[in-house]
Amino acid sequence: MSVTAPAGFEAAGVAAGLKSTGKPDVAVVVNRGPYKTAAAVFTSNRAKANPIMWSERVVMDGRVEAVVLNSGGANCFTGAFGFQTSHFTAEKAAELLDVSSGDVVVCSTGLIGVGDEVFRQKVLQGTERAIAQLSDDGGEDAACAIMTTDTVPKTAVRDRDGWTIGGMAKGAGMLAPGLATMLVVVTTDAVLTAEQADTALRRATRVSFDRLDSDGAMSTNDQVTLLASGASGVSPDLDVFADTLTELCLDLATQLMGDAEGASHNIRIEVSGAETEDDAVTVARSVARNNLFKTAIFGNDPNWGRVLAAIGTTDAVFDPYNVDVTMNGVRVCTQGGPDRPREDVDLTPRDTHVLVELFSGDSSATVMTNDLTHAYVHENSAYSS
Amino acid sequence: MSVTAPAGFEAAGVAAGLKSTGKPDVAVVVNRGPYKTAAAVFTSNRAKANPIMWSERVVMDGRVEAVVLNSGGANCFTGAFGFQTSHFTAEKAAELLDVSSGDVVVCSTGLIGVGDEVFRQKVLQGTERAIAQLSDDGGEDAACAIMTTDTVPKTAVRDRDGWTIGGMAKGAGMLAPGLATMLVVVTTDAVLTAEQADTALRRATRVSFDRLDSDGAMSTNDQVTLLASGASGVSPDLDVFADTLTELCLDLATQLMGDAEGASHNIRIEVSGAETEDDAVTVARSVARNNLFKTAIFGNDPNWGRVLAAIGTTDAVFDPYNVDVTMNGVRVCTQGGPDRPREDVDLTPRDTHVLVELFSGDSSATVMTNDLTHAYVHENSAYSS
Repeated sequence: MSVTAPAGFEAAGVAAGLKSTGKPDVAVVVNRGPYKTAAAVFTSNRAKANPIMWSERVVMDGRVEAVVLNSGGANCFTGAFGFQTSHFTAEKAAELLDVSSGDVVVCSTGLIGVGDEVFRQKVLQGTERAIAQLSDDGGEDAACAIMTTDTVPKTAVRDRDGWTIGGMAKGAGMLAPGLATMLVVVTTDAVLTAEQADTALRRATRVSFDRLDSDGAMSTNDQVTLLASGASGVSPDLDVFADTLTELCLDLATQLMGDAEGASHNIRIEVSGAETEDDAVTVARSVARNNLFKTAIFGNDPNWGRVLAAIGTTDAVFDPYNVDVTMNGVRVCTQGGPDRPREDVDLTPRDTHVLVELFSGDSSATVMTNDLTHAYVHENSAYSS
Repeated sequence: MSVTAPAGFEAAGVAAGLKSTGKPDVAVVVNRGPYKTAAAVFTSNRAKANPIMWSERVVMDGRVEAVVLNSGGANCFTGAFGFQTSHFTAEKAAELLDVSSGDVVVCSTGLIGVGDEVFRQKVLQGTERAIAQLSDDGGEDAACAIMTTDTVPKTAVRDRDGWTIGGMAKGAGMLAPGLATMLVVVTTDAVLTAEQADTALRRATRVSFDRLDSDGAMSTNDQVTLLASGASGVSPDLDVFADTLTELCLDLATQLMGDAEGASHNIRIEVSGAETEDDAVTVARSVARNNLFKTAIFGNDPNWGRVLAAIGTTDAVFDPYNVDVTMNGVRVCTQGGPDRPREDVDLTPRDTHVLVELFSGDSSATVMTNDLTHAYVHENSAYSS
């Protein structure tokens, strides 16, 4: 059910010819209210795509009527013409939905530099057709229309006492956080103020999408948008809502990790005993971005030396000679020296767990990443994306 | 002639059984004087190998008699036993050369975690045999003995008016700077004070080895050592010496780039128009470390969007919408938008030039890197290193 699981939402996904395959490529999600509360987080990449620049303004007042999303072109680095395309897209949707264009978020994904007149016309026509097909069970179609190199649509739903959260996500390469890391739309029929929506969304993304770092490459177009219709009439406890939203975002993030381009391992790098949570994230991310570590995991090699070498490049508080490393439950390194033999570690399962213990405090964090494989190199060298 | 090209030096390289292939794996370089001046730069990785911790102390007083180097084991994360091995190696060399062990530098390279009793005995025996074979034309043998996954030895010589600089280097993977980035020994028969040697070495490495970033992975064992014998009796102008040393270090760094594990392109990323040199290096390094950019170059795809996305993650002074990108002489991006078609760019030559113009100042810098290939993934996943 995706984004149409909560009451008060309609969605659709159509094929507008942006993808050469003819697959669906334009999605629309509409909040029918009664409330039109919204919050969003955006990529922190300074090279921002045109739809990001448009949407940042739209979301600022905490009110959003609809989200238009397209795959098949990022509309990034396409100049003033490209910004106008995002603006026109919002105007087209606003006109058809009888709302203000200043309340319509636009998201694009695909190849950077794509966004010419042909692209514009296809997006506008797709928007029109998608709006004509809006329905309260259109969530799955919308989730399919935002896919790029994804092999499966990603959706998740959480039902709670009288209210529901639903979400869809896309993203399979160029997955690293600044803030968001991919296109995500989350809907809920809970009653939330704009401030509550913003607080909950930031709490959730900080420990989910922000901790997914598949290939270290930060996108120009990433955005996570939360829409709240209030159609359930229930005002949830903010902590309960934020926890549920976090759980749903982690679910979607895990699906993104599981479908990352060319990956053969889903790797959770857990750092414990850090002085601060920031230190834990810094250490985990440093390992997650180390190509030698990533290729070792691809080769089922528990090469803990590469883990320590990666940690050593950070400014986190730790003593390199008092670090333990455990891979899939086998402690291969104790106090910065060899422990159990590498033959004892089974890295053949796709799910891989690396535990780094720093003995410098009580903070911890987990970063999700993938291995570096032949298939990753192939997908990203043989095709432009 | 490598490190024995300048007067006053002897060297040797022998096979001590550290490499399973039976190839040479222990090298010794001895400064016969009259002066024993030295300087060194070390990896800035906080996870330092035992030989680094030993050598940092040795070099501190600006005097070095000899350098013992081994491949076939990094002696890193091998605990107090490993530090003792470095110490014993220096003592063995000192005893045989009749010098102080506090004037003997030790360098190791190979797999992290390797450094047991067997390793120690082989290093000690190799040191003894290498010293027995020292000769004033042993430079090539020494250069071969420090190779790991290198396919060719790397040496360079520069003759100037009455004095000479010679050098050898090894390094094919885990090539990214903190300071050094690989094992390098440079010798000269010029007359230098310890302070002059240190100044010249830092000037040279800052713009050569420090700007080589093949795979973003910083090593635990990297060291560049400069030995000055004064045997020519000539005290060169310090600027001329530093410029010549820089030229030689760039020559060696280029050889390292050309032999990097699995690479099919040597990529020079030149950033001009930066506000500061630091900004130029930051921007160039950010592109050099972007896996999507690196795979695109492997695929001969002039994907400038990935260049801009990488730049956007930095804090350098620039306007994303006023950046030009030129690949192999063809400007594919002007003011953050598409310019010449990508078909116009020929990326088939191994040597690749990417020019990024920021229009924010007068500073520039070039970082050398490689593409990310199937062969890189294969070498680093199929074998431990």
